[in-house]
Amino acid sequence: MTELSTESGREVRYKDVSAAADRLSGIARRTPVLTSSSLDRRIRANAFLKCENFQRTGSFKFRGAFNTMSQLSAESRASGILTYSSGNHAQAASLAGQILGVPVTVIMPEDAPAVKLEATRGYGAQIVTYSRAETTREELAQRLSFERSLPVIPPYDHPHIVAGQGTVGLELVEDVEDLDLLLVCCGGGGLLSGCAVAAKHIRPGIRVIGVEPAAADDATRSFYSGRLVTVRDPDTIADGARTPSLGTITFPLVLQFVDEMVTVTDGELIEAMRFLWERMKIVVEPTGALAAAAVMAGRVAVEGKRVGIVVSGGNIDLQRAAQLFAR
Amino acid sequence: MTELSTESGREVRYKDVSAAADRLSGIARRTPVLTSSSLDRRIRANAFLKCENFQRTGSFKFRGAFNTMSQLSAESRASGILTYSSGNHAQAASLAGQILGVPVTVIMPEDAPAVKLEATRGYGAQIVTYSRAETTREELAQRLSFERSLPVIPPYDHPHIVAGQGTVGLELVEDVEDLDLLLVCCGGGGLLSGCAVAAKHIRPGIRVIGVEPAAADDATRSFYSGRLVTVRDPDTIADGARTPSLGTITFPLVLQFVDEMVTVTDGELIEAMRFLWERMKIVVEPTGALAAAAVMAGRVAVEGKRVGIVVSGGNIDLQRAAQLFAR
Repeated sequence: MTELSTESGREVRYKDVSAAADRLSGIARRTPVLTSSSLDRRIRANAFLKCENFQRTGSFKFRGAFNTMSQLSAESRASGILTYSSGNHAQAASLAGQILGVPVTVIMPEDAPAVKLEATRGYGAQIVTYSRAETTREELAQRLSFERSLPVIPPYDHPHIVAGQGTVGLELVEDVEDLDLLLVCCGGGGLLSGCAVAAKHIRPGIRVIGVEPAAADDATRSFYSGRLVTVRDPDTIADGARTPSLGTITFPLVLQFVDEMVTVTDGELIEAMRFLWERMKIVVEPTGALAAAAVMAGRVAVEGKRVGIVVSGGNIDLQRAAQLFAR
Repeated sequence: MTELSTESGREVRYKDVSAAADRLSGIARRTPVLTSSSLDRRIRANAFLKCENFQRTGSFKFRGAFNTMSQLSAESRASGILTYSSGNHAQAASLAGQILGVPVTVIMPEDAPAVKLEATRGYGAQIVTYSRAETTREELAQRLSFERSLPVIPPYDHPHIVAGQGTVGLELVEDVEDLDLLLVCCGGGGLLSGCAVAAKHIRPGIRVIGVEPAAADDATRSFYSGRLVTVRDPDTIADGARTPSLGTITFPLVLQFVDEMVTVTDGELIEAMRFLWERMKIVVEPTGALAAAAVMAGRVAVEGKRVGIVVSGGNIDLQRAAQLFAR
């Protein structure tokens, strides 16, 4: 794992995001920015939605995974990598591996939804399942990494991952002039901190706001207390934000570059999802609707402002979504 | 009604579509064109989806309605217009009226879904309901038009409507170079004929293909027989294509500018919708998925080609969609 963790140190600077953008050019999708006059009327502001649900594999995660894996040594490319995720990072790393010719092994819980196991296998990855009762994915990853001499591509807490995710913010600030605010959902903080680094460099006056589920407010509490707070197994539909805490790379970046953290309830999330699906015609997963929900629920003062909103992903089973909408 | 039907005659030429584009500039949305590498792999072609589900009011219908209503006399603008639709045209005409300051009265069946009545009222239209058992919407429209001296804005069979809808094809052929094929869904033929007029002018070599539900194949049979065929109350989930026949304006244009007509089953439509929702993350109504379904079901030879696909709209109740996907 040394190869991945030491090369660029613990900091992420704008030049790292910019270099990631070069690596991703022509490979990741430059996702469209959508607007909605009914949303604008409702929030009395101009909203610009950066649609990473249209990114390859259906979420922003592909950016960080590809940026990281494209910097592997020739040796590691040949022997392959190891990663763990029950969600979007698994598919992202698997596709990045397929493109780069890197064998990918993904550690997933044995009770992961069949559809996610299938999607990950569909990108050619090998899957190792484990019992949640017997071990954690981090322990298993560490053991397998040692036994098989494979580097681990972590889901968020690595400078290359953060730099890759930061290209979302870079593109949005490049494509939409004069943004006053930028709202980004927050799980492990890779997307939030990367976007903050990029946006603040290009537009120093922009206000960057992170959004968490109310039941998984570890980053919010960490941000306001200055100490890393952990929340385990939070009860929220936003599965991408169930990560227990910010990481050692992302926490300092969030403290340095983010201006404010807010939370929304699951009910508010569902209302925002309903608006995004019904009115804006985009399929957005619960975590992907966090930033929009914060604006629509009035958690942030936006009146008269130009507001960038990151829609982080759209991977949700349609029947599961129907259940949420029937609540 | 004379005011609307005589001014530009029965033909629609490229200059009419181009003039419509000028009227719609800054008012209608220039909708994005989406691509998908998984779709391309699946159909072994390059597909370009023109996403009119992102158009204002959720379908292409806004283009034709606004183009027509913006050409009303000052007198008609003040007194208002009459239209009939249980679907997308009602919302489109209502919003166009709101923007232009034209009072809009919409004739809708008394058993229309509450959500559609609400959406139409939400744009400020007045609604007149009727019993399907007692009259037809065309009869009622004619009677009210006479009694109230209001012009009728028809849903498809008018040159200004056709010219407005044609801007969809115009934008797609402008935004995507070297298209070989253009697939467009067909109900009353306004969108299909307008797009064909525009696309053939800009790119004479392009092959334009209309797509209907198998159970509502009136236009396909009309096209191949050269005689106007009517299919009443067809059993298909594609409600926007349940119109009984092409119109007197649209039929000759379809004969002149369209190269081929194909049909797809409701089962194929649902499979295409599932792909568009699950993989491409866009909310598409059944009629809106017709053109994509024709390609995915292999109704058209597309291998190695550059294929424009019009996604016409995204207005569907989420619970209704869940029922379709559960089939």
